[in-house]
Amino acid sequence: MLLGLSNSSGRALCRRTFGKQVHSQSIKRSSRGAATMEPQTLQMPSLSGFMQRIKECNEGMEAFSTLKPFLVNGKKVGHFKPEFVEHLSHYPSVFHVSESQVSLASELDTPEKRTAQVARVLEELRDKKVIGGWRNELYPVTSSFYDKPELLVERAAATHFGMKAYGVHCNGYVVDETGRYKLWVAKRSMSKPNWPGKLDHIAAGGQPHNLSPTANIIKECEEEASIPLELARTAKPVGAVSYTTISSVGLKPDVLFTFDIQLPLGFTPKPQDGEVEYFELWPIERVAQTVANTTDFKTNCNLVIIDFMLRHGLIGPDQEGYLDLVRGMRNGDCS
Amino acid sequence: MLLGLSNSSGRALCRRTFGKQVHSQSIKRSSRGAATMEPQTLQMPSLSGFMQRIKECNEGMEAFSTLKPFLVNGKKVGHFKPEFVEHLSHYPSVFHVSESQVSLASELDTPEKRTAQVARVLEELRDKKVIGGWRNELYPVTSSFYDKPELLVERAAATHFGMKAYGVHCNGYVVDETGRYKLWVAKRSMSKPNWPGKLDHIAAGGQPHNLSPTANIIKECEEEASIPLELARTAKPVGAVSYTTISSVGLKPDVLFTFDIQLPLGFTPKPQDGEVEYFELWPIERVAQTVANTTDFKTNCNLVIIDFMLRHGLIGPDQEGYLDLVRGMRNGDCS
Repeated sequence: MLLGLSNSSGRALCRRTFGKQVHSQSIKRSSRGAATMEPQTLQMPSLSGFMQRIKECNEGMEAFSTLKPFLVNGKKVGHFKPEFVEHLSHYPSVFHVSESQVSLASELDTPEKRTAQVARVLEELRDKKVIGGWRNELYPVTSSFYDKPELLVERAAATHFGMKAYGVHCNGYVVDETGRYKLWVAKRSMSKPNWPGKLDHIAAGGQPHNLSPTANIIKECEEEASIPLELARTAKPVGAVSYTTISSVGLKPDVLFTFDIQLPLGFTPKPQDGEVEYFELWPIERVAQTVANTTDFKTNCNLVIIDFMLRHGLIGPDQEGYLDLVRGMRNGDCS
Repeated sequence: MLLGLSNSSGRALCRRTFGKQVHSQSIKRSSRGAATMEPQTLQMPSLSGFMQRIKECNEGMEAFSTLKPFLVNGKKVGHFKPEFVEHLSHYPSVFHVSESQVSLASELDTPEKRTAQVARVLEELRDKKVIGGWRNELYPVTSSFYDKPELLVERAAATHFGMKAYGVHCNGYVVDETGRYKLWVAKRSMSKPNWPGKLDHIAAGGQPHNLSPTANIIKECEEEASIPLELARTAKPVGAVSYTTISSVGLKPDVLFTFDIQLPLGFTPKPQDGEVEYFELWPIERVAQTVANTTDFKTNCNLVIIDFMLRHGLIGPDQEGYLDLVRGMRNGDCS
């Protein structure tokens, strides 16, 4: 019965030490053939650098207690910072502010009425310089992606509303003749207002409400990296990641639909819309080290790249912290 | 500003209808070439059948309020049904039962002492026929996979303790010359005590505490499907799924480490250890229909297969319910 406890060093008790006992890496290697090519595995001394990047994407998770939820039609669709609630409280015919929440006047019983009345308030707040960076672009406010929006609000107000935003990200990769992975990395233009000079995916973007995610990523592949339509259509949906970050303005609970596109070895993406300075093809080891040890990538790209490494077996469950990474792919409300 | 609201049918307001506007499937198809082969997509009228299978794996999620947590060393490591707590309450020198929880006597301050004293109780409960199916195999009790076990308990008591159990599952698949997926499906022997006659993965098993997950799946590939070591080692770790089911005996919060192995077109797995009646290679469409419309697969295999379809782009985000499936891959405590 006490099998496993007899080892006086306590090792048999300790699952953490299984690597010392029988480990796949210790199985004798032999010559490689195409059919039985051993999968590439990253040799990372620890997964803690990856975990640090996940934490940086989720700095909003601890802010909930300081924010007031925004309820529309009985559904929680956002969160406000106290400073912004103060502004909204001056418009009691539109926003009802209580101790526990912010809601809309009950007369605003259609998406059209809500959108019109909220727009009126937001335009005043824009004129008062409370809301900056006006875009003249409407974002849907919903509690989940496939629901009908409860209203639309100006994109510049989205973070003030702490509303969910959706995006698409595509890992553009190649597998060379020896089975080794490389990832195409974009360098963002220094003239971009957001994240200038950061490393990025080959194609990514916000999710407009009049395109499907798949049509959107195909469009981004064409526009951002000059990938021909025929090739862009080979992008595969591979899931979604979610995270909740926060800025000085408000909460950002994001869901990113993720795609992989395996590009031919001879293909080179080209910047097209001026948003990318250049593309480079990096061995996956360099990508992994950059993610683990630097903040050179745009914050949310790290999450999508870690997800890529998990799905392609580049990181494995024999390493401590693996399940933390797996869980870390979807924090917050992935709906 | 009110762009998007002008459509009197309300469609532009409704993200659910993006498919009617611009959809990747409507992009003109042209002749297929290897480099630009369009990814295979399953044509499922709805994802609700998949969602139903996920629910069946998680029937334990609603039982928590009826169970008493088991705390060891300040960590929650399991849950008991009231009937089993009643039995434990007869051993106050080992188990302390309070209104809110069950814990161990504070004198049991090492894993060895806990294991020995709990074993004494469990052997008595076995002799009283409270615990059936004794295995003489010890399972580690931990709050998460990479932690040291707080104690070891007889495997037959694991579900009574509602403790986390870990397993490995491997999707054995092929991609044919036209880029279409097929999955090797196992038919479980009718003589197996658990899930006789159900459909199963090519290789799967419980996770013993003296093997790494990768070494374990390689062993299972060899033992269950006669996959030669050289080929078995090409199995790639691809993440983990988790779920919480419940039986008449107790809670089963499981974490499965998932692997994919792409098998050569000419390879045929062979049953070896008598647990499998036969293997069949099914087109992925047949697998998907079987998962969506039947309970022919062993319950937790459905989850691993849905995860496979999500990761390989066979299901995509343009379909309503996609994010519910993505989220459904990891219910309960995936740690």
